[in-house]
Amino acid sequence: MQERLERQLAFIIEIDKVKSVFRQTRLFDNSRHENDAEHAWHLAMMAAVLAEYSNEPVNTAKVMKMVLIHDLVEIDAGDVFLYDAAATTTKKQKETEAADRIFGLLPEDLATEFRGLWDEFERRDSPESRFAAALDRMEPVLQNSLTGGHAWKKHGICKEQVLAANKHIAEGSTVLWNLVRNHIDQAAESGILAQ
Amino acid sequence: MQERLERQLAFIIEIDKVKSVFRQTRLFDNSRHENDAEHAWHLAMMAAVLAEYSNEPVNTAKVMKMVLIHDLVEIDAGDVFLYDAAATTTKKQKETEAADRIFGLLPEDLATEFRGLWDEFERRDSPESRFAAALDRMEPVLQNSLTGGHAWKKHGICKEQVLAANKHIAEGSTVLWNLVRNHIDQAAESGILAQ
Repeated sequence: MQERLERQLAFIIEIDKVKSVFRQTRLFDNSRHENDAEHAWHLAMMAAVLAEYSNEPVNTAKVMKMVLIHDLVEIDAGDVFLYDAAATTTKKQKETEAADRIFGLLPEDLATEFRGLWDEFERRDSPESRFAAALDRMEPVLQNSLTGGHAWKKHGICKEQVLAANKHIAEGSTVLWNLVRNHIDQAAESGILAQ
Repeated sequence: MQERLERQLAFIIEIDKVKSVFRQTRLFDNSRHENDAEHAWHLAMMAAVLAEYSNEPVNTAKVMKMVLIHDLVEIDAGDVFLYDAAATTTKKQKETEAADRIFGLLPEDLATEFRGLWDEFERRDSPESRFAAALDRMEPVLQNSLTGGHAWKKHGICKEQVLAANKHIAEGSTVLWNLVRNHIDQAAESGILAQ
């Protein structure tokens, strides 16, 4: 087998590990925690279904690729809970090292493409990355609001924290931010989210 | 919320159920069975990484959408083991009814687009669907060959069955079929697949 295909195959096998990185959020039926591969799949589906609500026109295929790969760094760096301020400070360096290793498995052209997409997602400085980041925040709010606020309750999260951590959804999509705000308001009113 | 967004959201929540449809194949670390959402995510990643090996030029974004949705029908119809001939005969009708229901949750334009992609995937009559089908067969062969042939052994599958069930990979990609054939040959030689 030629070296190029060998490297592509090594990457494809390596990324299987993201299926074993479990998140704080739970499936919509509340049966168990979700893992990063399932989360990425769901965001790509959301991109395909909801792209029309981006504030700016987006290349949907680029958004899909971006969300499919955005959590691969957690194979090495692990999942950090959005509201865990202490862990968030060391997160960036760990994730950058993970990106070097994991995307570095690929042939150079693909490594450059994927690393570029991941950097852009992290910077949120393009229409695609702002919309991808909006989807990445929207799914956990829906999961929490529709499963009795499991992760919020467990960690004693209040409404102001959720609003602050998710408000950049509005930079990607005001329509989806309005939808998410309704879920947050209802969660606070019904008591599954502390006021 | 407007009716269109309500229908899009209902679809996004409904398809979460595909995370609970478990397959015969196992993760590459052999720790547990894989589910359909993880499988779809992995195929979309393979599309992004391996598109250059399609026999014919493909629209990679279309292949990605196709593989992301190709198993949603299993929410209703369940996963049928590739080598289970009896179950395969009733599979088609169950899956068609499931496609009617699940894609029918979406607004009409998106329902038509997704149903069209699913029908095309099933027919294998375009470059994208032939390549998507190749990826869909390639992943389980790799999973079996790299985890000691778990599903093959459990069901007493022999090399000729695996070759027959997977040979249409060659219609999508001769390069990937050669790679898969090597895995099948090695699996048979090492005894994890019956001769």
